[in-house]
Amino acid sequence: MTTTTSSHDVISSDRVEGTNVYNAAGEKLGSIDDLMIDKISGQVRYAVMEFGGFLGMGTDRYPIPWSMLKYDTSQDGYVVNLDKATLESAPRYATDNVPDYDDEYSLTVNKYYGMP
Amino acid sequence: MTTTTSSHDVISSDRVEGTNVYNAAGEKLGSIDDLMIDKISGQVRYAVMEFGGFLGMGTDRYPIPWSMLKYDTSQDGYVVNLDKATLESAPRYATDNVPDYDDEYSLTVNKYYGMP
Repeated sequence: MTTTTSSHDVISSDRVEGTNVYNAAGEKLGSIDDLMIDKISGQVRYAVMEFGGFLGMGTDRYPIPWSMLKYDTSQDGYVVNLDKATLESAPRYATDNVPDYDDEYSLTVNKYYGMP
Repeated sequence: MTTTTSSHDVISSDRVEGTNVYNAAGEKLGSIDDLMIDKISGQVRYAVMEFGGFLGMGTDRYPIPWSMLKYDTSQDGYVVNLDKATLESAPRYATDNVPDYDDEYSLTVNKYYGMP
């Protein structure tokens, strides 16, 4: 069993872009555009997402705390509990205007989603 | 202080490629070409490195267990304790021939470097 599935345990950073993200109902919300990785621990802190599809949230990028995403092997993508109302006031930025991910920005994002 | 340094706490997966890697003497060994990230935990498992510079190890890619790399803020790069003799027999692959990172392959790499 492991020989056919375990090759999917890891993802190359080269291939992060485009990983699909779904809601609990299985609808595609969008995709991961980028990951923000802690340089020291090597832990992903944020998935930077675009929600241009189903939710029609335009081309802005939305940093989502990693712990909010659950990996679903059956869909080979992530599931996150987010709706349009939540995203309408969520922290976001244009792709050509990436903010410094400093302590203040991290706190703003985490607080918005009620994460520690 | 944090305002000038903390923006460097995270690295975008888009920008992983090219992060420098040095030895303990401060010599540049090569650079990170790619990261292999655990899809579920979001933890980086391997830095995939090229050692074409100082060590002259050609164009092959070498997966190195993440825990072997220490981030050095002064160099804005990683330090790893590796020499040419160690790398000469190390697991490697051509860029157009990436192996499945399955349990067996992971065990081979970890064992070679004496990691759990």
